[in-house]
Amino acid sequence: MRGATAPPAVLLEHARGGDRRALGRLLSMVESGGAAADEVASLAHPLAGNAFVVGMTGAPGAGKSTLSGWLTAALGEDGRRVAVLAIDPTSPLSGGAILGDRIRMDGVVSDQVFIRSMATRGHHGGLSLAAPGMLRVFDAAGIDVVVVETVGVGQVEIEVASAADTTVVVVTPGWGDAIQANKAGLLELADVFVVNKADRPGASDARRDLEYMLDLGPAAHDPSRWRAPIVSTTATDGTGIEELAAAIEGHRSWMTEHGELERRRVHRLRDEVRSHAMALFADATDERLASAEGVALLDEVTRRRLTPAAAARTLLRTN
Amino acid sequence: MRGATAPPAVLLEHARGGDRRALGRLLSMVESGGAAADEVASLAHPLAGNAFVVGMTGAPGAGKSTLSGWLTAALGEDGRRVAVLAIDPTSPLSGGAILGDRIRMDGVVSDQVFIRSMATRGHHGGLSLAAPGMLRVFDAAGIDVVVVETVGVGQVEIEVASAADTTVVVVTPGWGDAIQANKAGLLELADVFVVNKADRPGASDARRDLEYMLDLGPAAHDPSRWRAPIVSTTATDGTGIEELAAAIEGHRSWMTEHGELERRRVHRLRDEVRSHAMALFADATDERLASAEGVALLDEVTRRRLTPAAAARTLLRTN
Repeated sequence: MRGATAPPAVLLEHARGGDRRALGRLLSMVESGGAAADEVASLAHPLAGNAFVVGMTGAPGAGKSTLSGWLTAALGEDGRRVAVLAIDPTSPLSGGAILGDRIRMDGVVSDQVFIRSMATRGHHGGLSLAAPGMLRVFDAAGIDVVVVETVGVGQVEIEVASAADTTVVVVTPGWGDAIQANKAGLLELADVFVVNKADRPGASDARRDLEYMLDLGPAAHDPSRWRAPIVSTTATDGTGIEELAAAIEGHRSWMTEHGELERRRVHRLRDEVRSHAMALFADATDERLASAEGVALLDEVTRRRLTPAAAARTLLRTN
Repeated sequence: MRGATAPPAVLLEHARGGDRRALGRLLSMVESGGAAADEVASLAHPLAGNAFVVGMTGAPGAGKSTLSGWLTAALGEDGRRVAVLAIDPTSPLSGGAILGDRIRMDGVVSDQVFIRSMATRGHHGGLSLAAPGMLRVFDAAGIDVVVVETVGVGQVEIEVASAADTTVVVVTPGWGDAIQANKAGLLELADVFVVNKADRPGASDARRDLEYMLDLGPAAHDPSRWRAPIVSTTATDGTGIEELAAAIEGHRSWMTEHGELERRRVHRLRDEVRSHAMALFADATDERLASAEGVALLDEVTRRRLTPAAAARTLLRTN
């Protein structure tokens, strides 16, 4: 009962001490948005900047949840605190697929791993605002590594993946056509490739397709650029997990050496400021358009005395 | 030579008199954006508001181009001026698929039909800004009906379709799974459904799937709402085109009677003002973030003295 009314500062203190319920409450506050989210952000931001964020994306059924289960074990071996943020495209009510996978991972995923799922929909300003805010809470709570899972390689997934320090793209045998279709996007996105279900027919073809794509990519002839390694795994029995953890650590070291880690984090904060500004402006614009003055302005447009672009300039000037 | 340097006002005069090259030039000016686009918009906006816009969307290969070819003939029968705006997802350079279809339609599409294709990519502020601007030019030039073709039912297509008075969604036999997956989106989008390739196996299944979906939709038990009719067509030989034209005219009459046409047009202008405002604000924000003051602000964020949300509020206040 005491915890239910505890202010964010107290919750954060408890979360930093390892209190999982306090951490869960802070995450919910950020996810809900509003004044409480702002307060949590103000407390968390100064304490953040230490967690390493691993993004993991791929088609549904590629084995991401199982892989990240193994990965939390591998990355948490030397006592580091590990968490998973699973972006769930299913409804906030069902949450089926991910929970099912988690249960199957029982015994692999340590009780010490904090797992949180969030729905893709229903976030004010979109997932690209909510996800970084939640990562900041994990970070401030003293989590060392956060694995963020997203499904697919669409616009939302790319935005969320760009909130990661290292992005792992998981493909499976038979994914050749999808690789062809997404070449540019995958090259841009992936720091590490995983061919999961490596025991299945077609695994070597998938690997060869990726190698071929990388041979044509910008890193092929420029040794100063990172070339994404390809790791073969079988998530069902954990084969290849040590190699995957090593590939992620390798990318982290490379980024640190080349100043890329800092560059990415600064770029990410800039994008976040921009996204917040756009969301605030969108709200302000909707309010203005609904006001008497806004209605009069729109009336000028529908009476064809003012172009939409000119009306927009008026809105911007007087905002 | 004279035409190449003619100012927009002269071009518009010529376009209204039926000069196709002048119309083409005005459309290019709007598509390119900038000051010339603003000038064209200022001239076109007061003259627009009469053209009826038919949106036509569906999966690649569903037969949209052939259908809209036939449709231009059917809708242009009583001397109305008809144009096609084809939103082409291929590169601005290739333009392959749509041009190929057009050539196959030779003899069906009258020389009087003005056809313009525009690429999906490369528009400042996105297609949702460029497309309404181009429609306004058609409108001001005295075109009576514009058919806008888009491929797919993704976010961009929905935005463009929402610029239409009547939206036709084209499905083909075997499209059952896609119908299932997109139920809500299709119900929201479609004013008229077409089952094309109606001579193929599975056409009656596709039709039944749509009927079933409509039976569960909001119009099923509310006679004040429009229930999208389903028209079966065979685009290759023009079967069903008269029924399709009649269904579109039926929707138009219904909208006019119920005040829906006016409501949609006002809503659309509002959205356009909002999109322009967002694009202007995005530009202004990028400029601000690149300025000395913006760099100093971002530095406060990366030094963790200021949260991204607080920095965004500063940007908004001083914009």
